[in-house]
Amino acid sequence: MILTVTLNTALDLTYGVPELVPHASHRVSEMSERPGGKGLNVARVLSALGHRTVVTGFAGGATGTALRELLADLSPQEPGGPGGPDAPHGPDTPGTAPAPITDALVTVAGNTRRTIAVVDRTTGDTTQLNEPGPLVGADEWAALLGRYEELLAGADAVALCGSLPPGIHVGAYAELVRSARTAGVPVLLDTSGEPLRRGIAARPDLIKPNADELAQLTGSREPMRATRDARRRGAHGVIASLGPDGMLAVTPDGVWQAAPPARVLGNPTGAGDSAVAGLLSGLVEGLSWPDRLRRAVALSTATVLSPTAGDFDRAAYEELLPRVGIEEHAPAAR
Amino acid sequence: MILTVTLNTALDLTYGVPELVPHASHRVSEMSERPGGKGLNVARVLSALGHRTVVTGFAGGATGTALRELLADLSPQEPGGPGGPDAPHGPDTPGTAPAPITDALVTVAGNTRRTIAVVDRTTGDTTQLNEPGPLVGADEWAALLGRYEELLAGADAVALCGSLPPGIHVGAYAELVRSARTAGVPVLLDTSGEPLRRGIAARPDLIKPNADELAQLTGSREPMRATRDARRRGAHGVIASLGPDGMLAVTPDGVWQAAPPARVLGNPTGAGDSAVAGLLSGLVEGLSWPDRLRRAVALSTATVLSPTAGDFDRAAYEELLPRVGIEEHAPAAR
Repeated sequence: MILTVTLNTALDLTYGVPELVPHASHRVSEMSERPGGKGLNVARVLSALGHRTVVTGFAGGATGTALRELLADLSPQEPGGPGGPDAPHGPDTPGTAPAPITDALVTVAGNTRRTIAVVDRTTGDTTQLNEPGPLVGADEWAALLGRYEELLAGADAVALCGSLPPGIHVGAYAELVRSARTAGVPVLLDTSGEPLRRGIAARPDLIKPNADELAQLTGSREPMRATRDARRRGAHGVIASLGPDGMLAVTPDGVWQAAPPARVLGNPTGAGDSAVAGLLSGLVEGLSWPDRLRRAVALSTATVLSPTAGDFDRAAYEELLPRVGIEEHAPAAR
Repeated sequence: MILTVTLNTALDLTYGVPELVPHASHRVSEMSERPGGKGLNVARVLSALGHRTVVTGFAGGATGTALRELLADLSPQEPGGPGGPDAPHGPDTPGTAPAPITDALVTVAGNTRRTIAVVDRTTGDTTQLNEPGPLVGADEWAALLGRYEELLAGADAVALCGSLPPGIHVGAYAELVRSARTAGVPVLLDTSGEPLRRGIAARPDLIKPNADELAQLTGSREPMRATRDARRRGAHGVIASLGPDGMLAVTPDGVWQAAPPARVLGNPTGAGDSAVAGLLSGLVEGLSWPDRLRRAVALSTATVLSPTAGDFDRAAYEELLPRVGIEEHAPAAR
């Protein structure tokens, strides 16, 4: 199974309004609710690819309860009951039926945050409102560490995703990266700012920064220079997501650039999380770097194309997969 | 006790943001949650005035649970446990300690709606987002009618407040007004549009429309003409709230105009609900019309002045109360 960690989960609400006018009153014409936070988004895509996933992190309060109910609704029901972290592994072949997502979240006293995406139906623009996360106490962090160590024992790979809630020390991801390394579980870190800087120093297998996160980390907006710099800081492999230009991968095995066959228009929400799911599932399946990158780029492009923010369009994914362009850089350029 | 009915309760969220910019992402810097819907706001003010209140209406789903928890937190704890509708009546004198608010909401399958007030801390402007209410089924409406009839038996007065959720027929308030009249319980109706038009025909004791609601009902924006017209449609008494100009009362006992000593600046959210609480508490205490109107105007003005939307500033209320101007119209003018 693949483990995803989301320390700052969220109940994601999307509100459609005919037009967003500041200072006016709006009747929400359509709304949807889903369990959110980057690691939960990654888990949803992994499940769709047929990979059993376990999610941990924090959830609390009425919003935490709502999030967990929605998460339970997501997971396909199996004849033998939902698969736990100890359930036998399926063949984990992408393209099969959705695999279960197991809730191993740690309950906290504070309220899980909400995020609200207000979609203006006239312009298509989205205005985002993000509540602060719950204050997490030292005992709650200790409970998470214990749960994480247990889950690592059964994990083929782990993704550490998103921001830190208040109360969690800035070196938290570095701590989680070290535990995964000690347990011999490949670890991907997807965060930003100081938690990323600290986390990299603990030598994760992979990081997946976007151009802004790379620039914040390294001071450079030149993709090759910034990606190499990020690798020197400790990450074994750096997969830089360059938005519509695809991805640049600087790894111990080589350097590749992967690009979608054409630029697409759509909602980029969740495209990075789909890329993480593509990279991790490819790693667990033992795919080559070019095949992992093809999958990551096809999934993130199919997410931009999906009418529902954060979901991927399966038909588009299957159509794009063989058409992702891969260019290997000559060893001298490494 | 005073009964308030809120068919479309809401979990009211207030988000403070440094500045609301459409199409941008915002970190919510302050947030608050409270149980909402007009009848719940009225109950909160009645409780602060020392009146035992019972609230009914609908609540459901995770948001309904959150609303009920917040409602339970609001009610002062008494040594003998929280007062139910059958608890002995206290002296019900305003100015005493807060009285209990009893939750007699009917549970429904749908989710109680949220409302979100986004306050721009730069301009002070509020942008409102209101979710649609839950779809209420025929059996749920029947359960509400049963609960309402039981509660009327112990009520000194009842307020019917706010909009109708989807699934409730437009004559619902007319039905509730008739039951109250049959039970001999004074009934105040505070709604708008077609539910108000239908409800008036069932001859409520009081309605409290604002200028817009009156204009929608009667086609006139001239306060005296519109208020008289509303009375001819069936309401025994019409108290028109004219915003900063105070209130115009056309009643079987006379016609009065009440005005605050000066215009005030602030947030008018909840001012109308405070006025309803003032009118109902004054009725139950047997105050004269001028005293009821003084209380209603002082409470609504003190609500505009309060730093928290929907709460009233008690010191301002006590200071304003003796200074509200009352003018009686000569009988010939009636």
